[in-house]
Amino acid sequence: MLIEDRLKELKDKISEKVPPGISVSEVEFEGPELVIYTDDPKKFADEADLIRLLARDLRKRIVVRPTILEDPERAATEIRSVVTENAGITDIFFDADTGEVLIEAEKPGVVIGKNGVTLREITRHIGWTPKVVRTPPIESVTVKQIRQYLRAVNEDRKSFLRTIGRRIHRDITNRDQWVRVTMLGCCREVGRAAFLLSTPESRVLIDCGEKPDNSGATPYLYVPEIHPISQIDAVVLTHAHLDHCALVPLLYKYGFEGPVYCTAPTRDLAAMLQLDYLEVVSKEDRKIPYSSNEVKSFIRHAIPLNYGSVTDIAPDIKLTFHNAGHILGSAIAHFHIGDGLYNIAFTGDFNYAKSRLFNPATSSFPRLEAIVMESTYGGARDNQTPRADAEEKLYETIQAVIGRGGKVIIPAFAVGRSQEVMLALEEGMRRNKIPAVRIYLDGMIREATAIHTTYPEYLNSDLRNLIFREGMNPFLADCFVPVDSPDLREKVIQGEPCVILTTSGMLNGGPVMDYLRSLAADERNALVFVGYQAEGTLGRRIQKGWREVPFGRRESIVINLEIATVDGFSGHSDRRQLMNYVGQVQPKPEKIFTVHGDENNTIELASAIYKRYHIETHSPLNLETYRMA
Amino acid sequence: MLIEDRLKELKDKISEKVPPGISVSEVEFEGPELVIYTDDPKKFADEADLIRLLARDLRKRIVVRPTILEDPERAATEIRSVVTENAGITDIFFDADTGEVLIEAEKPGVVIGKNGVTLREITRHIGWTPKVVRTPPIESVTVKQIRQYLRAVNEDRKSFLRTIGRRIHRDITNRDQWVRVTMLGCCREVGRAAFLLSTPESRVLIDCGEKPDNSGATPYLYVPEIHPISQIDAVVLTHAHLDHCALVPLLYKYGFEGPVYCTAPTRDLAAMLQLDYLEVVSKEDRKIPYSSNEVKSFIRHAIPLNYGSVTDIAPDIKLTFHNAGHILGSAIAHFHIGDGLYNIAFTGDFNYAKSRLFNPATSSFPRLEAIVMESTYGGARDNQTPRADAEEKLYETIQAVIGRGGKVIIPAFAVGRSQEVMLALEEGMRRNKIPAVRIYLDGMIREATAIHTTYPEYLNSDLRNLIFREGMNPFLADCFVPVDSPDLREKVIQGEPCVILTTSGMLNGGPVMDYLRSLAADERNALVFVGYQAEGTLGRRIQKGWREVPFGRRESIVINLEIATVDGFSGHSDRRQLMNYVGQVQPKPEKIFTVHGDENNTIELASAIYKRYHIETHSPLNLETYRMA
Repeated sequence: MLIEDRLKELKDKISEKVPPGISVSEVEFEGPELVIYTDDPKKFADEADLIRLLARDLRKRIVVRPTILEDPERAATEIRSVVTENAGITDIFFDADTGEVLIEAEKPGVVIGKNGVTLREITRHIGWTPKVVRTPPIESVTVKQIRQYLRAVNEDRKSFLRTIGRRIHRDITNRDQWVRVTMLGCCREVGRAAFLLSTPESRVLIDCGEKPDNSGATPYLYVPEIHPISQIDAVVLTHAHLDHCALVPLLYKYGFEGPVYCTAPTRDLAAMLQLDYLEVVSKEDRKIPYSSNEVKSFIRHAIPLNYGSVTDIAPDIKLTFHNAGHILGSAIAHFHIGDGLYNIAFTGDFNYAKSRLFNPATSSFPRLEAIVMESTYGGARDNQTPRADAEEKLYETIQAVIGRGGKVIIPAFAVGRSQEVMLALEEGMRRNKIPAVRIYLDGMIREATAIHTTYPEYLNSDLRNLIFREGMNPFLADCFVPVDSPDLREKVIQGEPCVILTTSGMLNGGPVMDYLRSLAADERNALVFVGYQAEGTLGRRIQKGWREVPFGRRESIVINLEIATVDGFSGHSDRRQLMNYVGQVQPKPEKIFTVHGDENNTIELASAIYKRYHIETHSPLNLETYRMA
Repeated sequence: MLIEDRLKELKDKISEKVPPGISVSEVEFEGPELVIYTDDPKKFADEADLIRLLARDLRKRIVVRPTILEDPERAATEIRSVVTENAGITDIFFDADTGEVLIEAEKPGVVIGKNGVTLREITRHIGWTPKVVRTPPIESVTVKQIRQYLRAVNEDRKSFLRTIGRRIHRDITNRDQWVRVTMLGCCREVGRAAFLLSTPESRVLIDCGEKPDNSGATPYLYVPEIHPISQIDAVVLTHAHLDHCALVPLLYKYGFEGPVYCTAPTRDLAAMLQLDYLEVVSKEDRKIPYSSNEVKSFIRHAIPLNYGSVTDIAPDIKLTFHNAGHILGSAIAHFHIGDGLYNIAFTGDFNYAKSRLFNPATSSFPRLEAIVMESTYGGARDNQTPRADAEEKLYETIQAVIGRGGKVIIPAFAVGRSQEVMLALEEGMRRNKIPAVRIYLDGMIREATAIHTTYPEYLNSDLRNLIFREGMNPFLADCFVPVDSPDLREKVIQGEPCVILTTSGMLNGGPVMDYLRSLAADERNALVFVGYQAEGTLGRRIQKGWREVPFGRRESIVINLEIATVDGFSGHSDRRQLMNYVGQVQPKPEKIFTVHGDENNTIELASAIYKRYHIETHSPLNLETYRMA
């Protein structure tokens, strides 16, 4: 059926279901949503259940937009009169192209009202469709710039969404039915995550990351399976770490013009880290894979999805994100393929333990035949220290180093591990388990923290309550001092005993290198690893015991400072949790693929799963393709 | 390095090694061969070892051609004067483009002389490069037409060979090293053989056959791995059966312009069967996949290779064919990849038993890491009756049917099984084990037999001796009567008790259908299966016991005649032979992939091999890709 005919049919169906007196002037696909344009948005808003029922019957995500819009100035006044003062509205932005008004408020819940009553009230008064976002308690430059940019390119974006919407809802032409997954990276290794999910009709790329060993290795983007890249239906990004997202912008350089589905925090964190990545790479004499223009392309083509929202991303593929518990916005990507043909989940990186920041990863799905599962700590001996013990060890180490007049360097991913460690340190200091020294934050850590407070709905409820109900934001504690200039960095190096939390987490570039160069010779200092060190990184080498390491092309530095590893802060499930996850996951899958781990770990985990649960397991190789159905 | 520079370098090297007084005027790649043009072909011919030494040092297949050619008429006279009368020269053809003269003779060995002495003598006298072919004892229309066609398109072909030669010898640009095999058909099924062997540099398609169930199913030629088809380096054809070769011409329709490597008999038999296939398909109201023009393209682009000849077919791939023992010209394709990186053999269909026609399949290779192996009779209970017992059973069945006044229909592949059965029947009649009735040959059987006698070097030595030394050609026995008109077919149906050997072998079209329609109702007659009946074919249904079968769209026929299966004539290894082959093959491979068999058979064989030999086995699915190195 032609797409125009399908839209006509949908319009007729909707018109039938809508009560008399409410007009349906146009119906259009925009991205994965079906947008209903009406002259009577206020009346539409009165029918509280109408949109829900339409969505259920048509099996589409539905948005209602007014055909004619009220004067923005008058509308703004009306909004402020409807919403009570304590909502703390900080900005109102009208978007004439989508008919949306973005209301930024300190307490978005108040703007929305119970069951959305205030929001409907607003709609009834102004016609514009209100969208509410939280005013970040710590202002994030990234979030601000991304919002500004998206406003600026609004017209482009609208036409992009219509194109994509029509592409998603095209007719299925091939009568064959099969499902395959091609491993383009991340198999028997950590890094350069990239998987191609394909059917006779559609192709979806899951993640597109860098290899964190400074080799500049990309996923196997030159093999025919992924070409033409321009014809890929969608990219799905599980989370913002560079080994999953760094090369997404490269796809736009290679001619991709389609959507990237991810959560909103993943979009913002990924953009921040990609820009940082470009800076790190340019300093290191490595080939710069793309420019900030391609990061902009990524932002412009990103379609944010919330956890739990079932979304058509291709004629025969529905995507649902679920909490992965790994970092802010991290998701398990669940794909429902065909009309009940197959269900497969890609865990991305996931944590099945509750952490200070997040709930454990989701383990229950409506249907599930296969899991592609990370195995970072999949080895037989890869059980982690319990979190409480790990925190004690960290406290003790810091106590000792500060006590002897040294400095503690903690290299950490800007996103995830840093915030976990910050929360542990803040509490440790509050409870006098560590001395009241300065905790310096260098690299992107402060900015990443700001993004966390922009999306509190992605944090676990304990932390959310602490920040928003009890008004106690541990990220804003006085002990944390951002390092925002080379001068200050030099002062920190020369100064008092302190803790330095800094990027990059595996010592492959970033400000940690400056600290290491200056502080490595003094044995009073300590380098404390709190995260996984991938094979081939400087971090791994030092962890293994190298006592003199190359530094840049000609230099080398002598490692005299104490090396400690505190292994309970991981954002990954350890071996026990991985095994428990497989035991708990509902429904029981038929096949499990272990990826994203060193060769031994992926093989050991696959073998252990098979032995305990009698589930078919594979530990695939890069460049292999497996048939699922 | 530019190809011109490489040729220059080769020319310099050759000039150095050639004795003074012999000129090297040009050096050119033509297909997989390196051609040396010289003004002194006669002097070149005098240096008996020179070409062999050059080939060894340069690791290239070398051909010498004269720059200036003698007058053909005078040259022909000279040839006849050098070669003794008893060679039986039947034709001499001069090809000005290649500088070759094709000498067709009844005894090619006499034209060649001991260690090629006569051939060199010819070269010394005439300049032209002599090529000797055998005058077929039974004239094959196919062979004649193919030779004529190749002469007609000689200019095209020369330019094609130069293009391919330069492509084969291009520089390797990708620094990655890996080897993959993609299963495009023939996995957990019999039919539509197609495997893609790929490296970062090259892609080679092995076989491209039809599914013999009249479904019109092709290999998965629409997946991205095989695109662009125009960029595939080579097609390698293991043998001429339609489930391996039927869709090779389709590749030319899809834009392929590259070479098909196969043995000379495979080229001729394949072309014959493809043309017959087009006719069968057109009669059956199925979609005609291509026209005879594409069969011509296949012939024009075929590059014949002999068993044992190591041939560069891509910058990083060397192909060697080995006897597969299955049908005339059938080959195991052995690939040597990279500079010692990996070795993989595709058995195609193979027979590890000695048959009346062929030697057992080769089981020894210089190097070998993986085998992709057929499993037609791979099931645990798939052991075949010994050949002698099978022949006895065939004789007894015929005796009984003729005795009661019935007719025996033996459906058989035109190529392979028919000739095996002919030889058994001829001997049976000669030894009075069956009555002296007529044995009618319908379909392409007579023509296929003619092609067999054109290429005696592919038959086993017993049969070759019988025909060429003892002058006893069993294929020419009086009992065999070709059915060359619908009138005669009708007469056979109405006539005396007899044996009818006819195509197609699985009752999916062909003249066997006419016989079955007319003779199925009479219980005095018999239908004797001597070959494998694939799932989905009419043959399989009747073999399973169906007693009324659909015939065309509206008709159905009642099966009253006797159904017998004589299972020892197979051109395939049975389960015991497959297992023995794996035990015997040298060197022992690391991995074995079981393909070309029903689902149970491929799985059972894989499991049995693993249990007995502890070799890693896989029973892959269509559309999967395995990493080899």
